[in-house]
Amino acid sequence: MRILGVDPGLTRCGIGVIDVDAGRRAQFVHVEVVRSSRDLPLAERLGAIGRGVERALDEFAPDRVALERVFAQHNLRSVMGTAQISGVVLYAADRRGLGVELHTPSEVKAAVTGYGSAEKQQVQTMVQRILRLAEPPKPADAADALALALCSAWKSPVQAAERGAAAASSDVSGGLTPAQAAWREAERRAVAGARRG
Amino acid sequence: MRILGVDPGLTRCGIGVIDVDAGRRAQFVHVEVVRSSRDLPLAERLGAIGRGVERALDEFAPDRVALERVFAQHNLRSVMGTAQISGVVLYAADRRGLGVELHTPSEVKAAVTGYGSAEKQQVQTMVQRILRLAEPPKPADAADALALALCSAWKSPVQAAERGAAAASSDVSGGLTPAQAAWREAERRAVAGARRG
Repeated sequence: MRILGVDPGLTRCGIGVIDVDAGRRAQFVHVEVVRSSRDLPLAERLGAIGRGVERALDEFAPDRVALERVFAQHNLRSVMGTAQISGVVLYAADRRGLGVELHTPSEVKAAVTGYGSAEKQQVQTMVQRILRLAEPPKPADAADALALALCSAWKSPVQAAERGAAAASSDVSGGLTPAQAAWREAERRAVAGARRG
Repeated sequence: MRILGVDPGLTRCGIGVIDVDAGRRAQFVHVEVVRSSRDLPLAERLGAIGRGVERALDEFAPDRVALERVFAQHNLRSVMGTAQISGVVLYAADRRGLGVELHTPSEVKAAVTGYGSAEKQQVQTMVQRILRLAEPPKPADAADALALALCSAWKSPVQAAERGAAAASSDVSGGLTPAQAAWREAERRAVAGARRG
């Protein structure tokens, strides 16, 4: 199953694509950051980002989309732009018949670092380890998009056929749910990677 | 010039279309309210509203779009949905090469009633009078979409050729700007209409 993660933003919008197998092992496919200049009118900025997202949806043909759930908290001005971009992403996904999973930033951080208030750098480091990349994905928006896709891969129900396989393997690994088993495995690898590094 | 106004909303999204001549006289063309059920997933709701807006853009082929400027003020939850819809509208307009004018709710109220804190019913009444409709547009979202289009027609620069004509006629009407002249004229008609009623 292929998942495309989007970290929505009007100035920088991260797009990350991963493949996940029945055992929930994740493979890096693609990452990019689409940008729009602050000097452009709002419609043109949304146009530039929206076209980038649609291009990626068409080129990488994901099975589903993972998108950051937007909250109106601190910076209301930037939240409006983020909400507008997320609307465009949801609409583009719906037009292609793709489901969209929404995840809060703390869910995403907890999924890849085990800690819901992790720093941006921790997320970048863990995304690098889990996906076995040569370098941490930069800027943070790129890492966040991949982290969203990973979060969605581990948290959401897999397809029926895959679910059977994962359930069977989870019996072997001591009664863990597929998500727990995948999480344990990623954690084990990341720790092993950190020791090697 | 044809203007399509959108009062963005996730549950009810108003769409109103007017034609404006060189003298800024407005003619009613179309009004509708596109709806989406609260029971649907967010992506499908945005899909339903977005398709309605795109259908109207294609059917009525406006020269520009007038959209409510979204602020994060009172109800943050509903504001997020409104911002997402507005993102979809901005993106759909940009894809068609259409400019979008953003107006605040108080600008719109002031444009059609002369008072920035007017009640919804006042806006409905004035939109009915200005566009010479048999009944006030209902629900409020329908009236708001037409009011947005009227606000845009009166406040924004017209095309070069039209600007010349409007400037010439404004000289006749005592040195008023075209917007002021149009505003006076609408006000005069509305007051006359109210007296007749």
